[in-house]
Amino acid sequence: LPGARYVAVIGASQPSARDEETAEEVGRRLAQAGAYVVCGGRGGVMAAVCRGAQAAGGTTIGLLPGTGRDDANQWVTIAVPTGMGELRNGLVVRAGDAVIAVGGAYGTLSEIALALQAGKPVLGLNTWDIDGVQRQPDPAAAVARALELIGRDRT
Amino acid sequence: LPGARYVAVIGASQPSARDEETAEEVGRRLAQAGAYVVCGGRGGVMAAVCRGAQAAGGTTIGLLPGTGRDDANQWVTIAVPTGMGELRNGLVVRAGDAVIAVGGAYGTLSEIALALQAGKPVLGLNTWDIDGVQRQPDPAAAVARALELIGRDRT
Amino acid sequence: LPGARYVAVIGASQPSARDEETAEEVGRRLAQAGAYVVCGGRGGVMAAVCRGAQAAGGTTIGLLPGTGRDDANQWVTIAVPTGMGELRNGLVVRAGDAVIAVGGAYGTLSEIALALQAGKPVLGLNTWDIDGVQRQPDPAAAVARALELIGRDRT
Amino acid sequence: LPGARYVAVIGASQPSARDEETAEEVGRRLAQAGAYVVCGGRGGVMAAVCRGAQAAGGTTIGLLPGTGRDDANQWVTIAVPTGMGELRNGLVVRAGDAVIAVGGAYGTLSEIALALQAGKPVLGLNTWDIDGVQRQPDPAAAVARALELIGRDRT
Repeated sequence: LPGARYVAVIGASQPSARDEETAEEVGRRLAQAGAYVVCGGRGGVMAAVCRGAQAAGGTTIGLLPGTGRDDANQWVTIAVPTGMGELRNGLVVRAGDAVIAVGGAYGTLSEIALALQAGKPVLGLNTWDIDGVQRQPDPAAAVARALELIGRDRT
Repeated sequence: LPGARYVAVIGASQPSARDEETAEEVGRRLAQAGAYVVCGGRGGVMAAVCRGAQAAGGTTIGLLPGTGRDDANQWVTIAVPTGMGELRNGLVVRAGDAVIAVGGAYGTLSEIALALQAGKPVLGLNTWDIDGVQRQPDPAAAVARALELIGRDRT
Repeated sequence: LPGARYVAVIGASQPSARDEETAEEVGRRLAQAGAYVVCGGRGGVMAAVCRGAQAAGGTTIGLLPGTGRDDANQWVTIAVPTGMGELRNGLVVRAGDAVIAVGGAYGTLSEIALALQAGKPVLGLNTWDIDGVQRQPDPAAAVARALELIGRDRT
Repeated sequence: LPGARYVAVIGASQPSARDEETAEEVGRRLAQAGAYVVCGGRGGVMAAVCRGAQAAGGTTIGLLPGTGRDDANQWVTIAVPTGMGELRNGLVVRAGDAVIAVGGAYGTLSEIALALQAGKPVLGLNTWDIDGVQRQPDPAAAVARALELIGRDRT
């Protein structure tokens, strides 16, 4: 919808308990603010952010690596199978107006790099220490900053 | 969401008035049945099907060719920029459990062919006469048949 | 190399004996003319055109659906795994300045449609009868016409 | 061809003079060893590695972001337009059996991350200091190590 805000949330499929809690709170806060959550649609941080968003009545979009929807986590509202494998990382970044990274391994690093290359804001919570990533103290700050930066881009 | 049904609706960006009406009714009926509409997100048949779905309270997903959301029609609920140009035709097909084709030019033909190659049901309304396309008399029949075939695939 | 000509040759993975012979001659003639052969890199028409081209000292480029090179036929000079499954059909079309279709099933039809949508010349040998496809009597005519049209595009 | 080795060489489009020299030597040495050079096909490190490889009689493959071949550097032997924009970074990585990174900005970082995620060896020359990248003292060492690791994977 015109005016809708899309925030890509990225992170590991096998996160620490702490990163999982963080992701869940990020999802909840994005949903409360009325923003869409975009993610890779699978487990770990992806499942946690979707769970948090759905609990708060939000909408989550999962761009899946395979050609079927079976591997989507159960909190994905809209499951889009791409059949592009890990190339779908780039689609997740393209679909977000801003990116929040929570922890993460090499897949997350590739998404951070693609987002920075595209000039999109990247907010970091306990993630890769790459020049250009804006480190945030907590989920509340990360969500507020992401939405502020998206708003600024539009004015 | 588990159990959600996704129907890709494809057709020309510059359709006849009749194809546009057809697409709008297809969108309305899909929304009334609670199915998601997947499409290329732009004008013509894509705009008409989204308009019809949204008027009936439905959700529409537009997979866009460019890297921005600006070229989405205003009735797209979830706009996903792919930056893949016409290769996104293949993503539209992948994201649908069944395909309804309304009129259409070469882009539509490529989607019909990809859907048939993938073994997905293709319901046709005034579209390319390709072996494998199941011609339908009207939007009501096309929507009913699409949902029936999706249901059958799942049992 | 500047000035190089790329011809995409498309067709079924399980062709008739006649289509296979046709494809082999197309490959041979393209190689003799110094043009590159682009294809999907696998079996059937794809293997035949590569075999013909390689026998005449030509270069063949196979854009593969999987992430490995193992499924390339043995006459592919340059094997490019895409990991995009059947979406790589669109890459084959993009990589050709003109397209020669030999027989073929739904995958071939999707490539014909994408090529016509992109405004590329499509020369047909015993293939889908789609408006816009230029039917050719034999491989010699198809190759000559493809190279003529590429030359004309450049002037 | 069966047994062919493909090395992806990645780096900035606006490199330092030193990185450019490094890339040119990498290209020359890969060509001398009979390996194919895969790259993004454009300027900077991509042009330098192609220039070096071509001077030594090698073959270079450029996977381009746009839909045309015009933006390929003049030392690309095989130019493959993908029309996928920066998503083609992932295709460059997929097409290499090993990756040599020379300097580089965010695009290079995304390729390093995708390669490490895919379990491919990444040899670094004055590039991002990411865990998993094997730093090399000079082009000779990087090329020798890349080819050794590819050979080991095959045995």
